[in-house]
Amino acid sequence: MSIKSNKTAWINGVLATMDPGITDNDYGLLRNKAIITEGGIITAIVPNNDREVGTCKIRIDCKGALATPGFIDCHTHLVYAGNRACEWELRLKGASYREIAESGGGIQTTVQATRAASFEDLYTLAEKRLAAMQSEGVTTVEIKSGYGLEKSAERKILEVIRSLKAKGTIDIAPAFLAAHSVPPEYIGRADAYMNLICREMIPEFWGDGLFEAADIFVESIAFNLEQAEKMYRTCAAFGIPVKAHNEQISNIGGSALLARYKGRSTDHIERIDEAGVKALAEAGTVGVLLPGAFYFLRDTRPPPVALLRRYKVPMAVATDYNPGTSPFTSIRQALNMASTFFGLTPAEALAGVTRHAAKALGREHTHGILRPGFHANFALWNVKDPVEIFYELGPNPLQFIVFEGDIHPS
Amino acid sequence: MSIKSNKTAWINGVLATMDPGITDNDYGLLRNKAIITEGGIITAIVPNNDREVGTCKIRIDCKGALATPGFIDCHTHLVYAGNRACEWELRLKGASYREIAESGGGIQTTVQATRAASFEDLYTLAEKRLAAMQSEGVTTVEIKSGYGLEKSAERKILEVIRSLKAKGTIDIAPAFLAAHSVPPEYIGRADAYMNLICREMIPEFWGDGLFEAADIFVESIAFNLEQAEKMYRTCAAFGIPVKAHNEQISNIGGSALLARYKGRSTDHIERIDEAGVKALAEAGTVGVLLPGAFYFLRDTRPPPVALLRRYKVPMAVATDYNPGTSPFTSIRQALNMASTFFGLTPAEALAGVTRHAAKALGREHTHGILRPGFHANFALWNVKDPVEIFYELGPNPLQFIVFEGDIHPS
Repeated sequence: MSIKSNKTAWINGVLATMDPGITDNDYGLLRNKAIITEGGIITAIVPNNDREVGTCKIRIDCKGALATPGFIDCHTHLVYAGNRACEWELRLKGASYREIAESGGGIQTTVQATRAASFEDLYTLAEKRLAAMQSEGVTTVEIKSGYGLEKSAERKILEVIRSLKAKGTIDIAPAFLAAHSVPPEYIGRADAYMNLICREMIPEFWGDGLFEAADIFVESIAFNLEQAEKMYRTCAAFGIPVKAHNEQISNIGGSALLARYKGRSTDHIERIDEAGVKALAEAGTVGVLLPGAFYFLRDTRPPPVALLRRYKVPMAVATDYNPGTSPFTSIRQALNMASTFFGLTPAEALAGVTRHAAKALGREHTHGILRPGFHANFALWNVKDPVEIFYELGPNPLQFIVFEGDIHPS
Repeated sequence: MSIKSNKTAWINGVLATMDPGITDNDYGLLRNKAIITEGGIITAIVPNNDREVGTCKIRIDCKGALATPGFIDCHTHLVYAGNRACEWELRLKGASYREIAESGGGIQTTVQATRAASFEDLYTLAEKRLAAMQSEGVTTVEIKSGYGLEKSAERKILEVIRSLKAKGTIDIAPAFLAAHSVPPEYIGRADAYMNLICREMIPEFWGDGLFEAADIFVESIAFNLEQAEKMYRTCAAFGIPVKAHNEQISNIGGSALLARYKGRSTDHIERIDEAGVKALAEAGTVGVLLPGAFYFLRDTRPPPVALLRRYKVPMAVATDYNPGTSPFTSIRQALNMASTFFGLTPAEALAGVTRHAAKALGREHTHGILRPGFHANFALWNVKDPVEIFYELGPNPLQFIVFEGDIHPS
């Protein structure tokens, strides 16, 4: 008997709904309530002893476990080949950046390996990474392209992402990031590359339904404001949502520009200033904090959390999983680091991987909250308090996840 | 057919022996070699095609996997009850240390919960933590007492550790740490508590074979040099090896004192000075680096790695797993942080959880190196280069561990 296709009651859980409508506690906690699901949707949340529970064909006893919305990792680069471990080793042994570049280090290593990899190899590698994420309660993952940096390789990556999504065991939000870095073939000709992106890649890939949002790395070492604006205009013409990597290394005004185009999220933002934060607040753009990269790059300047709070900019938290600057799949580690490095309260951190991450992906009306009408994606944890999910990075407290109304792995 | 009791050849592995006798590479790498084991001991390392391999009753094909010595986590406090997650949440929400102390925070929370816990509860909790460690290649764990702080509770913890060890699935080095903190009953009377430790606990527990080494927290907020020396003298009289938590918060000369008593290891040492480092070198004491606590306490002063290198003090790396200041079981995370925060080369980090950790536990002639005569404890990893074991904290690359000559879990 399929759980998904039958009306099911998940009883005796403690619900950390993360619903801001429940204002008397940080996590939107509800006790003695049952989640009713049917057809992959939460249809009701009712008292355990409600007659609605009696009408369910299936009843699952959560035995006091804590239920959270399925976690949403809203910033990852998880489709790639090769690894950059040896480059890290060289650096730790004292090699200079030049020596590393000459030995083929940096993003170009990953680009070469990813271009050379087959569809099947990329798929298999990514599948393992997704499984690691699911083991920590993740039910939605954003995956960016961006290690192809040429039309055919970018398409290959997006098609791998589409296949991973089609498998139907995890919700995937594909993002188009050909503007991740200036490809070796276009060094000194970033404008020409941006033309290729805007004239060919965006129209074709969008037409083929290969992505949900377009992303760009706006930085002195990547693309400038003019190039970013060109891409945003192109996207606006197609109705494509935009987002960007901003203010990670320096502040050239990326967030403020993105806000003018109502960007869904601005990511990293260690060096954003007050004007930028204000612009985000007005545009409704989410600030995505990426403590894994902050850690791995030994950054010392955290994003301005107090400012983001003051202007009520929603803060998301993500792994930024990628081979060079945040080689970490663990969302629990990202949560722990968001609190340890950036001072987020545990409730803010959890909002960052649920309702705010949903908003960063345009899913705020369907995901990230335990609420009737939302997708039946949730995680059951063997903990008493939500903070225990990521305070201790020890034995994994996940009991199981429910994805689209079904227990996974079923 | 038991692997352990039969002569077995582990062929086609790449061996990161960590043997400093193999001086032409950092990891003591050997290729095209087989490990021969019998009765839980490595009896030989020979070419894959050696006739010795032909004489083995069992042959196991490692298919190119990388073999390392089983990892040794030489500093943990993993027998305790309760958790301190809510205290962390209070702190992140802006509560003062006084408010936290008044709500029952700090080590005393753990002491109360551990005193109140049954033997069975402590055993079950610790067993799960050990399993998490084994899943990352650990075959030897040091476990300290120290959350009892009274005779009966310290004995209970040491007996839990003895039972975990008796299970025979992991090598455990019990350490006696009643001098972890001044117990509430002895506030202002630390000397009286030290008398209890030296006159009753040490003789009785040592007599009962309950520990291998005695440990103490030497710091302004714990025990002073005079109290430490009293304990070291008592231990010297019994022939008990000593070790200490030193120079984590301030430098009161703990390492130099410990070196006079030929301590096995001095742990934390962020604030050790050159005189202290020199004393360690002369005494042959291992410096144990604990990056998990460094991270979680947001320390900004790393241990003086350059000095430790210059004086050739062996550096070990451990999780410091404990509920309050390093709630992390992951040895891979500790390795990654040792390189990221402290700049250890990956080879130094790996030596820190193999041969140097063995020395910290007095096991340098039996553990921590793949070498004939040493225990057949090793880990098989799906990686090409050793650094890949902990560069990426993603899908776990462990294939399996071999403990005392048997595959675990068998």
